[in-house]
Amino acid sequence: MKTRFILINTSHAGNVGGTARAMKTMGFDDLVLVAPRWANVLRREETIQRASGALDVLDNARIVETLDEALDGVAHLCATAMTPRDFGPPTRSPRGHFAELLGQNEALSKIELTVPVERAKKPDSIAFLFGSERFGMQNDDVYRCHVALSIPSDPQFGSLNLAAAVQLIAYDWREALGGFAVQAATAESHLADAAAVAGMLKHWEEALTDIGFLDPASPKKLMPRLNQLFNRAQLSPEEIHILRGVAKAMSQKALRAAGNTPASANPTAEQ
Amino acid sequence: MKTRFILINTSHAGNVGGTARAMKTMGFDDLVLVAPRWANVLRREETIQRASGALDVLDNARIVETLDEALDGVAHLCATAMTPRDFGPPTRSPRGHFAELLGQNEALSKIELTVPVERAKKPDSIAFLFGSERFGMQNDDVYRCHVALSIPSDPQFGSLNLAAAVQLIAYDWREALGGFAVQAATAESHLADAAAVAGMLKHWEEALTDIGFLDPASPKKLMPRLNQLFNRAQLSPEEIHILRGVAKAMSQKALRAAGNTPASANPTAEQ
Repeated sequence: MKTRFILINTSHAGNVGGTARAMKTMGFDDLVLVAPRWANVLRREETIQRASGALDVLDNARIVETLDEALDGVAHLCATAMTPRDFGPPTRSPRGHFAELLGQNEALSKIELTVPVERAKKPDSIAFLFGSERFGMQNDDVYRCHVALSIPSDPQFGSLNLAAAVQLIAYDWREALGGFAVQAATAESHLADAAAVAGMLKHWEEALTDIGFLDPASPKKLMPRLNQLFNRAQLSPEEIHILRGVAKAMSQKALRAAGNTPASANPTAEQ
Repeated sequence: MKTRFILINTSHAGNVGGTARAMKTMGFDDLVLVAPRWANVLRREETIQRASGALDVLDNARIVETLDEALDGVAHLCATAMTPRDFGPPTRSPRGHFAELLGQNEALSKIELTVPVERAKKPDSIAFLFGSERFGMQNDDVYRCHVALSIPSDPQFGSLNLAAAVQLIAYDWREALGGFAVQAATAESHLADAAAVAGMLKHWEEALTDIGFLDPASPKKLMPRLNQLFNRAQLSPEEIHILRGVAKAMSQKALRAAGNTPASANPTAEQ
């Protein structure tokens, strides 16, 4: 869905750069600045530094004088505002509003299955408006909007940094649109089968006996406890291999201590 | 739940300040810095500026030399890491992992109703670890962790600012813990009842006839269309009052144009 971020009367160049970076991490690139403090804000050093590579967002950004000029082609306007006003659009949390807007409200979806009702038209384009760092959005600008989004934050300290607020809204909106996939950083290994776990535990039982930790005449609950521990640990085949190596080394060290085996048989960990 | 944020080898003072602010907006205050670049980072001007009032978080922050010293009293360790490694903890999205950790997985909850199964112990304390701006987390530090959280971001540009990443994790974790309430910025007015809407439409029908826009002999679908429009608009009683005022002014202007009423009867909007 067409998505625009509109910064109104922004003072700090760093926040413009941070906004560009935050947008780009979430796959958005349509940025409009309304009457920023610095006319050359898109080319200031601090902006470019904080953008950290999101230069195409800055290159494509528009600077306009009035909010009207920023609103072409966007149907649904979301204010971001924390301060109380005499009246205005309803206040919603980003996640709640996005779910409603995209028809993801679970209760509503279930009702629809049996009772088709005429739903409000869904917008095909959206803009998020952010006011200045010191004063937030002016009332006249909030009145233009369909909803006022309020990021749920500590009532004692609700003051989010501007670029941080952009990052949260961009994240929630991207997630609502389906989200990016998380790339696993490592290949996840599969679980060892229960027979392999049982074999390893048998190996450990012998080794623990060899080193004198387990008394076969009075084993108590030691092996079942270890079994439960290793079940919770969800062992991989590679880890079974390591644990068998440990058991082997315990037994060999115990035998050598008893003078029954040459030093050259000392095993080392293979990992 | 006890929650700690741990920054490892942080280079930029601004990110330490931004982290303190991000934590405080979400109601967290336990910050530990492991071997930051600047020994005096908690008192640097840029730190304090970016903290923007979250000074108690900075005052309470600890600086330690090694990761070990940062881990007292926290049971569940979450790395934040994007780079591939040879092996390591499973990679999860923050939201998915938090729901699982807190037992909020809906499918699992439903199963539990009928089939009680032994669940893993839930931790009562958690720490989020963030690596340096340039290199992220070192493998040896990631290996200490139970999970690697990866913020879903554009595969073409996944480079989040450090303080922005802290903000997102703190937000998702706070939401998973139940979240802060959104404070409505305005009192939401209730809906006008359907009789009031019908009365207003009757008033408009007369007025539109008076100004010659509606032909009573051939009304077509004008009034039903307006009825649908006003239904979607979800009018409040105050707005019914405004719309009746508009209708009244239309009629009076039409009558005056026909020479039938004195100029002094000209109504004005009351809002």
